[in-house]
Amino acid sequence: MTVFVRSGGRAADQLRPVRITRGFTIHAEGSVLIEFGQTRVLCTASVEEKVPPHKRGSGEGWVTAEYGMLPRATHTRSDREAARGKQSGRTQEIQRLIGRSMRAVFDLAALGERTIHLDCDVLQADGGTRTAAITGAFVAAQDAVNKLIAAGALAASPIRGHVAAVSVGIVQGTPLLDLEYVEDSACDTDMNVVMTGAGHFVEVQGTAEGAAFSREEMNALLLLAEKGIAELTVLQAQALAG
Amino acid sequence: MTVFVRSGGRAADQLRPVRITRGFTIHAEGSVLIEFGQTRVLCTASVEEKVPPHKRGSGEGWVTAEYGMLPRATHTRSDREAARGKQSGRTQEIQRLIGRSMRAVFDLAALGERTIHLDCDVLQADGGTRTAAITGAFVAAQDAVNKLIAAGALAASPIRGHVAAVSVGIVQGTPLLDLEYVEDSACDTDMNVVMTGAGHFVEVQGTAEGAAFSREEMNALLLLAEKGIAELTVLQAQALAG
Amino acid sequence: MTVFVRSGGRAADQLRPVRITRGFTIHAEGSVLIEFGQTRVLCTASVEEKVPPHKRGSGEGWVTAEYGMLPRATHTRSDREAARGKQSGRTQEIQRLIGRSMRAVFDLAALGERTIHLDCDVLQADGGTRTAAITGAFVAAQDAVNKLIAAGALAASPIRGHVAAVSVGIVQGTPLLDLEYVEDSACDTDMNVVMTGAGHFVEVQGTAEGAAFSREEMNALLLLAEKGIAELTVLQAQALAG
Amino acid sequence: MTVFVRSGGRAADQLRPVRITRGFTIHAEGSVLIEFGQTRVLCTASVEEKVPPHKRGSGEGWVTAEYGMLPRATHTRSDREAARGKQSGRTQEIQRLIGRSMRAVFDLAALGERTIHLDCDVLQADGGTRTAAITGAFVAAQDAVNKLIAAGALAASPIRGHVAAVSVGIVQGTPLLDLEYVEDSACDTDMNVVMTGAGHFVEVQGTAEGAAFSREEMNALLLLAEKGIAELTVLQAQALAG
Amino acid sequence: MTVFVRSGGRAADQLRPVRITRGFTIHAEGSVLIEFGQTRVLCTASVEEKVPPHKRGSGEGWVTAEYGMLPRATHTRSDREAARGKQSGRTQEIQRLIGRSMRAVFDLAALGERTIHLDCDVLQADGGTRTAAITGAFVAAQDAVNKLIAAGALAASPIRGHVAAVSVGIVQGTPLLDLEYVEDSACDTDMNVVMTGAGHFVEVQGTAEGAAFSREEMNALLLLAEKGIAELTVLQAQALAG
Amino acid sequence: MTVFVRSGGRAADQLRPVRITRGFTIHAEGSVLIEFGQTRVLCTASVEEKVPPHKRGSGEGWVTAEYGMLPRATHTRSDREAARGKQSGRTQEIQRLIGRSMRAVFDLAALGERTIHLDCDVLQADGGTRTAAITGAFVAAQDAVNKLIAAGALAASPIRGHVAAVSVGIVQGTPLLDLEYVEDSACDTDMNVVMTGAGHFVEVQGTAEGAAFSREEMNALLLLAEKGIAELTVLQAQALAG
Repeated sequence: MTVFVRSGGRAADQLRPVRITRGFTIHAEGSVLIEFGQTRVLCTASVEEKVPPHKRGSGEGWVTAEYGMLPRATHTRSDREAARGKQSGRTQEIQRLIGRSMRAVFDLAALGERTIHLDCDVLQADGGTRTAAITGAFVAAQDAVNKLIAAGALAASPIRGHVAAVSVGIVQGTPLLDLEYVEDSACDTDMNVVMTGAGHFVEVQGTAEGAAFSREEMNALLLLAEKGIAELTVLQAQALAG
Repeated sequence: MTVFVRSGGRAADQLRPVRITRGFTIHAEGSVLIEFGQTRVLCTASVEEKVPPHKRGSGEGWVTAEYGMLPRATHTRSDREAARGKQSGRTQEIQRLIGRSMRAVFDLAALGERTIHLDCDVLQADGGTRTAAITGAFVAAQDAVNKLIAAGALAASPIRGHVAAVSVGIVQGTPLLDLEYVEDSACDTDMNVVMTGAGHFVEVQGTAEGAAFSREEMNALLLLAEKGIAELTVLQAQALAG
Repeated sequence: MTVFVRSGGRAADQLRPVRITRGFTIHAEGSVLIEFGQTRVLCTASVEEKVPPHKRGSGEGWVTAEYGMLPRATHTRSDREAARGKQSGRTQEIQRLIGRSMRAVFDLAALGERTIHLDCDVLQADGGTRTAAITGAFVAAQDAVNKLIAAGALAASPIRGHVAAVSVGIVQGTPLLDLEYVEDSACDTDMNVVMTGAGHFVEVQGTAEGAAFSREEMNALLLLAEKGIAELTVLQAQALAG
Repeated sequence: MTVFVRSGGRAADQLRPVRITRGFTIHAEGSVLIEFGQTRVLCTASVEEKVPPHKRGSGEGWVTAEYGMLPRATHTRSDREAARGKQSGRTQEIQRLIGRSMRAVFDLAALGERTIHLDCDVLQADGGTRTAAITGAFVAAQDAVNKLIAAGALAASPIRGHVAAVSVGIVQGTPLLDLEYVEDSACDTDMNVVMTGAGHFVEVQGTAEGAAFSREEMNALLLLAEKGIAELTVLQAQALAG
Repeated sequence: MTVFVRSGGRAADQLRPVRITRGFTIHAEGSVLIEFGQTRVLCTASVEEKVPPHKRGSGEGWVTAEYGMLPRATHTRSDREAARGKQSGRTQEIQRLIGRSMRAVFDLAALGERTIHLDCDVLQADGGTRTAAITGAFVAAQDAVNKLIAAGALAASPIRGHVAAVSVGIVQGTPLLDLEYVEDSACDTDMNVVMTGAGHFVEVQGTAEGAAFSREEMNALLLLAEKGIAELTVLQAQALAG
Repeated sequence: MTVFVRSGGRAADQLRPVRITRGFTIHAEGSVLIEFGQTRVLCTASVEEKVPPHKRGSGEGWVTAEYGMLPRATHTRSDREAARGKQSGRTQEIQRLIGRSMRAVFDLAALGERTIHLDCDVLQADGGTRTAAITGAFVAAQDAVNKLIAAGALAASPIRGHVAAVSVGIVQGTPLLDLEYVEDSACDTDMNVVMTGAGHFVEVQGTAEGAAFSREEMNALLLLAEKGIAELTVLQAQALAG
């Protein structure tokens, strides 16, 4: 079996260069540009001192996410969702995933009756935008929480640990970590994995694009994901320490 | 650790009683009422002799799904999506999942330039509606394909094998097969698994509702799912033979 | 003049076999499957302990209806209204008719500040779906009211009498009771009649599909409707007594 | 029983002053302002040299209607439907009624593959806007057809006869012709009747607003409607001759 | 250079005949039909005793406008915005302009916490509908305010002065006042100018339709606009005095 | 009169630091990040080898623009238009302005039957986003045209000259060039000016936010705008030469 050769001589279990830039824009309580190779997502965290109806009076807060892609973030221009008048099923699926992932590490009672909105906007897409969004949104949320603590609005952090995400997939029989667009288009199986800093799973979403996949293949993919997420957690911590 | 006691004395690895009624309504090319205990989903397959724009002129067909829930399929009435003017993110996510699952066993070239629409409408919900929908839609699709073959429109079946789905989850530390609503509401981890009749994975969607889950828990859940889907495949075959 | 021959040897003034199944689904306060021959409509009644804005603080309740048709309830698949993003004019017209018909026999002050939602969803269509819906919704509403009385929420019934509906029409010169689809498609005049158990009119909606109709034809149609509705009222009472 | 006294000493079986002004605006092929007392509706007929998809290639034309009400046509301002983003159920019901009524007197084959759009916009409302719209739209359609004939686009008229409409109702026990707003609000039974110039029924839509109505009451109302529509037909003819 | 010859021998700096009819409809607090030649706009002012959210509790009122065009106000029929389900960008731009123009002469604090809705509906279009709308809406607003004063709801007028508008443009090199449709279609530069009765600018919106325009051309256009608006202000005053 | 003091000691007639970064993202045919101080807009130009319906078969091309703002581009988070399901009136007004401005310097016949889409997305807002968008979109369009020429798809450029834009306004009596957000919020008059490289006007949109403005004030603003746009044209040329 010939092994699939990745661009730039990247190893099968190697992340693309990841860059996390905090304070990318000035207004948001948290503003992070995260880059996984050519994929670039701007993640902002906005604090709002009220909660949606289903949390009103509960003493608990809420963490929610929205996702968008600039029309020309992609190879060919895609329609602007605001102009079409609705978000695609794909967009809604992704923003629901980001929201659940972030809530997995938040103690909503400790947050108090306020909402953190995480807006993840893809400036440039080259595969893995949703996993980059989760990884970056965590850093933006952390910055927003730190501002709340610094301002005396919170006594302690409601964040219980890291959360990060990565995509894995099987391309021409080879399990690969962190797929870029050409790999994603060619893959038989595509899996998005979200994990905590403690190494537990928050979300696993695997899809057979071509042939169905075996238990062994799944195991190989999960191993790759665990490795990648462990590295991403370190990168998040370094960015936050920077 | 006390083990969670299931309603009706059901074992942890036991499916609810499954009933598959073919020909439930008269107009559709395939019409199946599938029941997983109290969950009842009407799955119809409609053949249309044209394809959506992205397949036009390709010589290939298309298989797509839509999902809906009657307003009072649930404990409390939910708004009618047609009246609200849009499908929820959850609905879109589910119908995309059903569509991908069905296409995983279809040879679209062998189908020819026609579309099979699978409409999955929940008449009564008690957990596991999306997995029941996939399992029932397969039977409806099979009936529709058989009609095309009988009518001479197709020489051979474009269906390459069975596809079925089941939910699994961890409730109070116990991995359970085929969650009903009260179990689903209480579970820490919820996983929907779609597999082929050959025992390969088509979709794995696991979500930590409460605590994140470990690799061991995931393995236990996948084992349960494999068992359940193997049984569902047999039930599908029996229904089709009936 | 040759007389139009009906399927199954049905007489011109004869209803199709009518079947009313109470408790068809488990969650709703009232849940009725009504069948007029091959037409099958699921009517559920849901009680909500609040009223729409125009009734707030009035001490009066509200009774309202929504109508839908599963995409493959019909011979050829019709688009799902939730996916299209709006209800058709026909759907809105029908659900307004059902709502008015039900309110005609309700004492809204005696209902108290609560709403009864009647959801009428057509599982299978073969003509006369709106009149079946009204006839079935009455039984579902009655069941919901009985639950309110049994629970002590109401001291007496706010329902002042029966309401039922039937379609009549002129096909090839012959006035017919309870049109099925092939008759409805061929008819010159189509009339939907809603009456109380006491034999008074609640709604009369007659439309000349082909030639305009005379006063004599109208009289003949109303006579047929009166006969049919008297029979339907008995069937409702039997179902409720069952 | 005291008889209901009408404004301006109008008799129970008397129409309000009706005024039909042709050529009210300059651009439309037919443009008629119709007034029933204080109710004023602008009806324009526009000819389009193509047909909707369901008539394409059929050799037949189409006649369709749209209805609107200016926000301050009514006592209190109502929301603009264009701003709200959808037409109400009432609006759709009315424009469907107008369209059916007009098609009842049109020979669509004789019209040829073109569409006549009838736009009925209420400038001022005081009851009976839909019946005024039908009565005025007929005159506008006639003018548009005459222009097509004058231009040589049609050899003969596709209009087979007059169509006109009026509302009737029972107020405090008295059957009244042509209800104005205060009568409409107070009535027990409200009926809109559409008839041909030959005295046949096109549409009968009767609704019990309060108590259900008897066969005798219905007969009384239909008699009043026949009288009113006979007079309206004369007024239409005079306007067209003018 | 040949000078552009206007219809009816109108001079380059001459307004079309302007007619302002107060009390055109009966229900609104202010109801004005304004005609600039063949352009006819119905402007109604409605008083609502509440304000939109951003003004609640501020002690200030609000003045807002909506704009619409009947489908056959134009040479060829345009789609009804209510049926299409949204207002065009052009419509929104115009109604925002009308609203800002009216607020420019209103003291919102003196108005008190109430809203004046100005609905400007074009019955017939022949160029300059937005400027006619502003000029007419002012008169309607004035009538509504006078009713509030007469009713004792306001002690003094919150209106600080007149506001009126006119279009100017350059057609074949000639600067023209008050463009009608054929001129508007042919012009190189089109400018809408809104001014107060005191001769100051509220809005200037100039657009090069063909060639970009020079400072000298702009100056010529503004001079024409000043002349036209001075005349319109006199006509407004005469109408209000009438 | 005290003169308004600008942040950073900026002179009244001084632009903020302007930075134009070409090739900001990799997929678009033209991709420019333009910064006016803290205002940052990403302008991409996408070439599509077809035209909208109104240009089909005309031999002419089309140039169009869309505008968006990331939810947290502003001080407080604004709703995402894609999630709300429609673009605001402000957004539509701005994108129409950008489109007209770009078409003013395009020879659509020379472009051939293709469309250039200009997407202007505000990453960070601090006043003047629409004028920055126009100034940046011109550079992106130029890059896209150059690629078409380089690829042999165009023999010569369809761009006839530069177009750029700037805002001017009067704050506390002082006419200022290039308003930042705090100035824009405080200004009495706000004017957006679009000019060609040759110094002619394409668009002038002046609005009195507070008091109406005089002819002298308007002249002072136009002088400032001319100065600013002349400088911006030089900066565009330098960026394109870079």
